[in-house]
Amino acid sequence: MAVITPKPVSGFPELLPEQQLVFNRCLGIIRSNFELFGFTPIETPSVERKDILSSKGGEEKEIFALSRLFVEANESPDTDVALHFDLTVPLARYVAQHKDKLTFPFRRYQIQKVWRGERPQKGRYREFYQCDIDVIGRNSLGLINDAEMPAVIYRIFREMQIGAFVIRINNRRLLQGFYGDLGIAEDKVAGVLRVVDKIEKIGPDKVQLDLVNRLSVAEAAAKAIVDFANTHAPTDELLTQLRNAPSMRNATFAQGVSELSEVVAGVRSLGVPDDFFKVDLTIARGLGYYTGTVYETRLIAHPELGSICSGGRYDDLASYFTTDKLPGVGISIGFSRLMFTLIENGVLPVSAATPAKVLVTVLDPSQTQHYLRIAAELRDRAIPTEIYLEKGRLGDQLKYASRKGFRLAVIAGESEFANHQVKLKDLASGTESVCGRDALIDEVSSRLKS
Amino acid sequence: MAVITPKPVSGFPELLPEQQLVFNRCLGIIRSNFELFGFTPIETPSVERKDILSSKGGEEKEIFALSRLFVEANESPDTDVALHFDLTVPLARYVAQHKDKLTFPFRRYQIQKVWRGERPQKGRYREFYQCDIDVIGRNSLGLINDAEMPAVIYRIFREMQIGAFVIRINNRRLLQGFYGDLGIAEDKVAGVLRVVDKIEKIGPDKVQLDLVNRLSVAEAAAKAIVDFANTHAPTDELLTQLRNAPSMRNATFAQGVSELSEVVAGVRSLGVPDDFFKVDLTIARGLGYYTGTVYETRLIAHPELGSICSGGRYDDLASYFTTDKLPGVGISIGFSRLMFTLIENGVLPVSAATPAKVLVTVLDPSQTQHYLRIAAELRDRAIPTEIYLEKGRLGDQLKYASRKGFRLAVIAGESEFANHQVKLKDLASGTESVCGRDALIDEVSSRLKS
Repeated sequence: MAVITPKPVSGFPELLPEQQLVFNRCLGIIRSNFELFGFTPIETPSVERKDILSSKGGEEKEIFALSRLFVEANESPDTDVALHFDLTVPLARYVAQHKDKLTFPFRRYQIQKVWRGERPQKGRYREFYQCDIDVIGRNSLGLINDAEMPAVIYRIFREMQIGAFVIRINNRRLLQGFYGDLGIAEDKVAGVLRVVDKIEKIGPDKVQLDLVNRLSVAEAAAKAIVDFANTHAPTDELLTQLRNAPSMRNATFAQGVSELSEVVAGVRSLGVPDDFFKVDLTIARGLGYYTGTVYETRLIAHPELGSICSGGRYDDLASYFTTDKLPGVGISIGFSRLMFTLIENGVLPVSAATPAKVLVTVLDPSQTQHYLRIAAELRDRAIPTEIYLEKGRLGDQLKYASRKGFRLAVIAGESEFANHQVKLKDLASGTESVCGRDALIDEVSSRLKS
Repeated sequence: MAVITPKPVSGFPELLPEQQLVFNRCLGIIRSNFELFGFTPIETPSVERKDILSSKGGEEKEIFALSRLFVEANESPDTDVALHFDLTVPLARYVAQHKDKLTFPFRRYQIQKVWRGERPQKGRYREFYQCDIDVIGRNSLGLINDAEMPAVIYRIFREMQIGAFVIRINNRRLLQGFYGDLGIAEDKVAGVLRVVDKIEKIGPDKVQLDLVNRLSVAEAAAKAIVDFANTHAPTDELLTQLRNAPSMRNATFAQGVSELSEVVAGVRSLGVPDDFFKVDLTIARGLGYYTGTVYETRLIAHPELGSICSGGRYDDLASYFTTDKLPGVGISIGFSRLMFTLIENGVLPVSAATPAKVLVTVLDPSQTQHYLRIAAELRDRAIPTEIYLEKGRLGDQLKYASRKGFRLAVIAGESEFANHQVKLKDLASGTESVCGRDALIDEVSSRLKS
């Protein structure tokens, strides 16, 4: 029989066990912190109807459609569904579909894979995880919800120990008001925001040029826009500058400043230290549907990652699917790319290749039932335990234990059984000790806690 | 703008939040028990190359291929990948591809969605979760690994509290040997096993008829096969009967009986009570690649579900992808169908629509920062907490709390703040008590533990 040699599929990454354990541990941290803030999990199917996905910017997103690989001669392989490319369209569809069975404000989290039907390219993922939270109101949603987003981001990345990071906060109204005050027409504001959003990527000079050349903004106004975006100062100082700015005569600007101040106060009350967030007037978020607070998050040591967690406030989640007004605020973590980078760079060290802590070795196969009982007792105490069930000398079994990264090995042979004793080997230090068979489970439990 | 009305897509189910919480709790139980036994998580991409998926029985499985929905005029939408239809083919591919980086025996679990490209039909899922464990050896794998499977199944379903269940265990060698001893040719045995496997579905008489008419088994042999499959007795009695059976002169039968006895002993040593497993000679598992121990699991109160967890021992996992011999043993839980049935039937009761336990109400908006600090303190103690951030009278806030299923509401207004006190309302009993602001976090923590 011919053997098919398996090889990786471009854009569909997978991890080795020791990496997967790190990946899953971090995913668990995200999940538990989302729940700590009262976000409830939902999971939508991997597919949506094609007309749902195409409702809003679908074409840009490169969608994977599903077709049936094997069909009868008279059947079409086509289906009416395709894989979702983000979790926002599915959320909008879910809320619109189930709105009468949901309680609002609806606080949901969603941790799922999404797919992008791109051409295979090095470094581009065609399948990856997104971790999203959103709070959705019916008709209205209190501003202070916007302060919860940085608080949950802060707790997650602190617990994940991924190094220094800064959550950057801005308010689109403030920018809109500023542009309005400069005399920029309302129908141009969205375009200006999109250009300003690239300031970190392409630099202030190029932004100024683009504003003048491509959007016909006046020289002076373009310079003012770039200077404004580049205003950096400690949070309270910056807020004071904004409150004293001439643009305060513009009502939209004034509202933006007021909202930003209130959100900053809330972020502090929710326990986020000043080192971990800043007001950053460069943040505009290109997406059209943000209307108020916007967020981006940078890892200080990995600027090349861009924003690892972004989001903002929007006026209406699901205008494509319902006439109900559903304002909301949310963030999204681009999890896979973040994890692959942090694992590759050793920021998140990879250690054990097993979730088990204890290996019960088998010295005397005639005592197999006894070894099994030891494992069962350890598992009864919620201690993850593996039994070495293959033929092998003790030395080989201990090598296996070290290679996989167990903490402790339980060793018992004829003499130990005769004396109702067991040996415990600490695999990191190499030290061995003897304890009574009856005391074994307590001993292992306390060793693992220390 | 025209609104697209969302509706469910046949075969792609989704849950409401209160159901999703039950679903996720049970998934967590499976995950933690898999890890308790030292199975390590892996996750393969949702897709495999088409030639990989088609290597073995792919056509029967109805595969969903991916194509790009929007392509340039000169591009083909086709891709070389399709969604996996189970987790066994991906495991075989993964182990063959990474075998030099894995430590054997390789104990892995995999909890992922799988897809079946069927025609839309009522009651048939085109997307669902499977939860698989396998132990894979390189060249050999100790028999006693087979005893671990019922032990992990037992712990999972006991903890999930899904009612009485029985894990049924058999051994294919024993059946093969029995058939051989009856004079059935070796090349017919697989066919006989497939027919016998249907005994519960179609009844013993129909099996006997099929054996005679479709497989040309002699009348007497067909009767003996059905009688044998129908032998029921308590475990030890049945094992004794087998050990005394005339077929023991057949070496394959004798090996099967010996293996079965050893597995039963191991299952008991691993703590599975006799009420939860039985030797059942009807279990054959239709799949060709099982060679020794086989398992099925039935919920007593829901026989219509068929087997909710099945698996067995096989000689070679990945013969399509490598010339290395990789024997293994594994089981698979068909999770989605099980959960949807149990939730629908109220076996798993649905309660809260939030993972949070505490709602901090807002009586006095001028004290918002104080409410936020209370929530932050509760969260610091790992107590999942939501803050009611909308405008609303206390009565409405408490109604919201009851509807979503919080345990406790924190209530504080002008007089409480003046006295450094807080009210705590137990939402199930409706009782209210007052405690000092400084004692609040401890009080909530101890209330939630009780």
